[in-house]
Amino acid sequence: MKYKKFDEMNCSLAQTLDIVGERWTLLVLRDAFFGARKFSQFQANLGIARNILTARLARLVDEGIFEKTALNQGGHADYRLTNKGLALQPILLSMTHWGDEFKANPQGIRLTFVERETGLPIRPMSVISQEGRTLLPREIKAVSGPARSDRHKEIKTSEKVRNKK
Amino acid sequence: MKYKKFDEMNCSLAQTLDIVGERWTLLVLRDAFFGARKFSQFQANLGIARNILTARLARLVDEGIFEKTALNQGGHADYRLTNKGLALQPILLSMTHWGDEFKANPQGIRLTFVERETGLPIRPMSVISQEGRTLLPREIKAVSGPARSDRHKEIKTSEKVRNKK
Repeated sequence: MKYKKFDEMNCSLAQTLDIVGERWTLLVLRDAFFGARKFSQFQANLGIARNILTARLARLVDEGIFEKTALNQGGHADYRLTNKGLALQPILLSMTHWGDEFKANPQGIRLTFVERETGLPIRPMSVISQEGRTLLPREIKAVSGPARSDRHKEIKTSEKVRNKK
Repeated sequence: MKYKKFDEMNCSLAQTLDIVGERWTLLVLRDAFFGARKFSQFQANLGIARNILTARLARLVDEGIFEKTALNQGGHADYRLTNKGLALQPILLSMTHWGDEFKANPQGIRLTFVERETGLPIRPMSVISQEGRTLLPREIKAVSGPARSDRHKEIKTSEKVRNKK
C-alpha cells in the first residue's frame, strides 16, 4: 500500500517520525544508548532479522544519527551515536517513563535512570515552563512561526472545537 | 513476516512502542492534542486510509488512551484523550523539539509551544536532575529495579563495552 510520506509534512513531529518511527528503530537506539556498538550486539539483543537491522542501521547512518567507523581487524564496523543521535535521548526516556507508569511490571520497577554523579533518579520527563514549573497538558498552546504563517490546519481544528464548547 | 512482540519485552520503552509505535498513531495523537475529536477530522487532517484510522482509534480506545463518547445525533462518537493519553505529551513534544532542531524548515520555526498564561516558550524537552539541572546524555545511567534483578541484558552489553576500552 502507498503511504503518505511523513518527510513531506511541514511538521517537526512527522519529520522525526519519518526517521525514528520505523518499527525496531527506537529499540536499536535504546541498545546503542546502553552501549551496543556492533551489528552482532544489536542482532543478539533484539532478535531482529538481519536484513531489517541492516536497513535500519543504514538509514540511521544516512541521517547522521550513527557514525559508522572504519572496519576493524575482524572486518566489522562500530556504530556510534553522534550528537544528533544522543539528542534523541529525551524521546526514549519520555517513552520509558510513560511505560513505567502505565505499563508497569507487577514485580516493580524495571530500570531507574539516575544521575551518575549523585545516584539520584532523574525527574520524570515533563513539560517545563521558562520559570522551571511543570506544566499540565492544557497549560500550553501552539503558536505559528514563519514557516507556518499560513496557520496550521490542526490549530484551526482546535479553535473550531474550542469555539463550539 | 513474524515480528517479535514488543509487549512481551520486559522494557518500558518496548511496552510504550507496542502501543504508540505503529505508523500514524503518534500523528493521530498529535491531532487529538490540537483538538481533533471526530473520525472525520482525523481523516481529513491526516489523509489516512479509513480502515487504518479505524484500527488505530480502536486500539487507542482499548488501551484507555482515548475515551469514546456515546454517539451524538449525527451518529458519530467523539474521541477524547484520557489522562493516560494526555500523559503522552512529553513523547510528542520531545519528538517535535528534535525535529525543530535537526529537521528544521528553512523558512524558520513551524510552531512554538508556549505557556498559555505567560506566552513564554516552554523549555526544550530535556533530562533534568533532581536538583533541576539539565543533564547531558552521558551523565545518567540505568540501575536495575526489582523487576530486573536478573540484570538487564543491555546493561551487561554496556559494561562489556566499557571494560574493553
